[in-house]
Amino acid sequence: MDDERDYAALDAFLREAGRDGYLLHASADLADQYYLSGFDAPDPFVTLYTPETTALLVSGLEYGRARSESRADAVRRYADYDYHGLASEHGRDEAFRRVVARFLDEFDAADVATNARFPLGVADDLRARDVAVTPDRDDHVGDARAAKTATEVEHVREAQTANEASMRAAETLIREASVADGVLRYDGGALTAERVKEEIEVTLLRHGCSLDETIVACGADAAEPHNRGSGPLRANEPIVIDIFPRSKTTKYHADMTRTFVKGEPSDAAREFYDVTRGAFDAAFEALEPGATGADVHAAACEVYEDAGYPTLRSDPGTETGYIHSTGHGVGLDVHEGPRLSEGADGELVPGHVITIEPGLYDPDVGGVRIEDIAVVTEDGYEDLTDYPVEFVVE
Amino acid sequence: MDDERDYAALDAFLREAGRDGYLLHASADLADQYYLSGFDAPDPFVTLYTPETTALLVSGLEYGRARSESRADAVRRYADYDYHGLASEHGRDEAFRRVVARFLDEFDAADVATNARFPLGVADDLRARDVAVTPDRDDHVGDARAAKTATEVEHVREAQTANEASMRAAETLIREASVADGVLRYDGGALTAERVKEEIEVTLLRHGCSLDETIVACGADAAEPHNRGSGPLRANEPIVIDIFPRSKTTKYHADMTRTFVKGEPSDAAREFYDVTRGAFDAAFEALEPGATGADVHAAACEVYEDAGYPTLRSDPGTETGYIHSTGHGVGLDVHEGPRLSEGADGELVPGHVITIEPGLYDPDVGGVRIEDIAVVTEDGYEDLTDYPVEFVVE
Repeated sequence: MDDERDYAALDAFLREAGRDGYLLHASADLADQYYLSGFDAPDPFVTLYTPETTALLVSGLEYGRARSESRADAVRRYADYDYHGLASEHGRDEAFRRVVARFLDEFDAADVATNARFPLGVADDLRARDVAVTPDRDDHVGDARAAKTATEVEHVREAQTANEASMRAAETLIREASVADGVLRYDGGALTAERVKEEIEVTLLRHGCSLDETIVACGADAAEPHNRGSGPLRANEPIVIDIFPRSKTTKYHADMTRTFVKGEPSDAAREFYDVTRGAFDAAFEALEPGATGADVHAAACEVYEDAGYPTLRSDPGTETGYIHSTGHGVGLDVHEGPRLSEGADGELVPGHVITIEPGLYDPDVGGVRIEDIAVVTEDGYEDLTDYPVEFVVE
Repeated sequence: MDDERDYAALDAFLREAGRDGYLLHASADLADQYYLSGFDAPDPFVTLYTPETTALLVSGLEYGRARSESRADAVRRYADYDYHGLASEHGRDEAFRRVVARFLDEFDAADVATNARFPLGVADDLRARDVAVTPDRDDHVGDARAAKTATEVEHVREAQTANEASMRAAETLIREASVADGVLRYDGGALTAERVKEEIEVTLLRHGCSLDETIVACGADAAEPHNRGSGPLRANEPIVIDIFPRSKTTKYHADMTRTFVKGEPSDAAREFYDVTRGAFDAAFEALEPGATGADVHAAACEVYEDAGYPTLRSDPGTETGYIHSTGHGVGLDVHEGPRLSEGADGELVPGHVITIEPGLYDPDVGGVRIEDIAVVTEDGYEDLTDYPVEFVVE
């Protein structure tokens, strides 16, 4: 894939909607903000993207860094619009409002699109000053972010390499554990979900990644896809390990899941695994440019339905079976576009980085999920995951 | 202090403004959301706080957890308002809008306040359905959060204990380093800011805390308060270490800074330290219930100005000297109310957890900052920091 970002669709949207630009007010924690500005700041700042220029408005404290580190064509600081004078006359809040209005005026932006989660307070202020502010319900910046450049794919690949090291550390703990009274033991105590998570996190840190949360869930915990898991891990039950770290340097994520059984899985759990492996393969089989996210999801659903398990499309209210979508985009956000789910009718294109992560859940059996991360290529896909898919560990 | 949360001011605001409730739509990453809902979910959900009840609206995936873990009186899921039927007729986005409107209708909320960063898209949808949505520019939930209960103070204290362990690990690396050609060396290589940060982060993880960022900055890097620092640490120059971790269990933060010199500081750096130590003591001297944040800030500024250094009040445009405020509240956010800065005219009350963190900065000298975290008590304050204030390490 190309190594140039493609803003053509964003520019066309702005032109067709009659907007002068795309406005953000957020810290770099908002992926759209970091993407458009290229500036990593912990407090909210303003970015105005137009087809001609990208301009930032930052506090004096961030001005030097914004000029040297951001991808903006122009950087302004509050003082450029007489913030101190305005603040002594009108107070700080009103001064900030006037500074933003003057900034937009300098860059001829009287009618702006914003992301849908743009802060209401700022929007109302601008509207009161006759700036038209319209939330972009179709998330055009998210669409631009979804199609990665070659450099962005490398960022994901690097994060995934760290991720695999942490999965290996977790798997090693489980392999090396002994079993007593049905519970995994290690280092003289029970091997807990918390202990495995700590090992994962320390390994990731040593590889330049961090993460907010990780899932190490066993038994009934694992039957709830969002349950993070806690307490002693048990033998003969599936243990779901789902790790989604972010590179501290590039801010790009990786994502992968493996499910392990220490000992002997039940027949039901083994069937969960075998069918999920089939759904995983079928989804990859369907993954290619021109296919839709819905197509890939349907391929996984068919395997489950053929094997007699409920899915959300065969039974929208089901609480067991295949109760989530097949995958999602991964980049600056761990969950971003494109979705691989029902109704996702946009075509996949080269550069889309996505997960394939089918799974089965039932409180009486536990949970099983297998997840790789891959990039769509001109002639199919490249799996960015280099980690064996195994179930039973001894 | 009391161990009951005090919502009286929030309730009075709602009553006087004629609002039916306070509405949030955010993930638990938004501190207001976690505070009012008590529910830790990674995706946005809806919380409606009224003086009578707290109600949550969550997806089916989070319903069980929300019922068992949140502090809400009532939990609703999309399916309670026929989401699936609405989605098949109108699409998912419109179905969600209608579900939110029905939820507000059930709880008689036709006129709501929201936090100022409430998502514009949701606000515009509700307004189009004749729900009055008004951003709360005075941040009343933030004010409620600022005054901590005894339990919340304990959460901060626990995070601070972990923080001190990580500061000790960092200081130990610097103490144990050797010096060659003016650069700190450890384990056969240069001791870098990155290496010290890794040690800090691993130590925090082992103590149940995480952090997004930390500052280990030396020389000219340290002269910019927001510079995170990088590269080899040098002898005879101040090294600023500022650590602000969050407990993974409670989500409460701690915050502290120490400045170390390995070797012999310059006379200018030593004076920076001595004067900053004086400003630090003066700010604590001024810290008591009934004082304002501005009073405490003024006490630090006076020490600097008396010693001939510029401050932001003696010279608003200065880029050297004392170029930030004296402190901030710490809790679910690492920066929250109350502010200890110019114009902060609200009175401090028992339960306010704040930092005291004066510092001096000059690219030719470097940076020096000393920061403790403390809680305002009935008769003054309690310093929650148990770590010596030292400058030169051998």
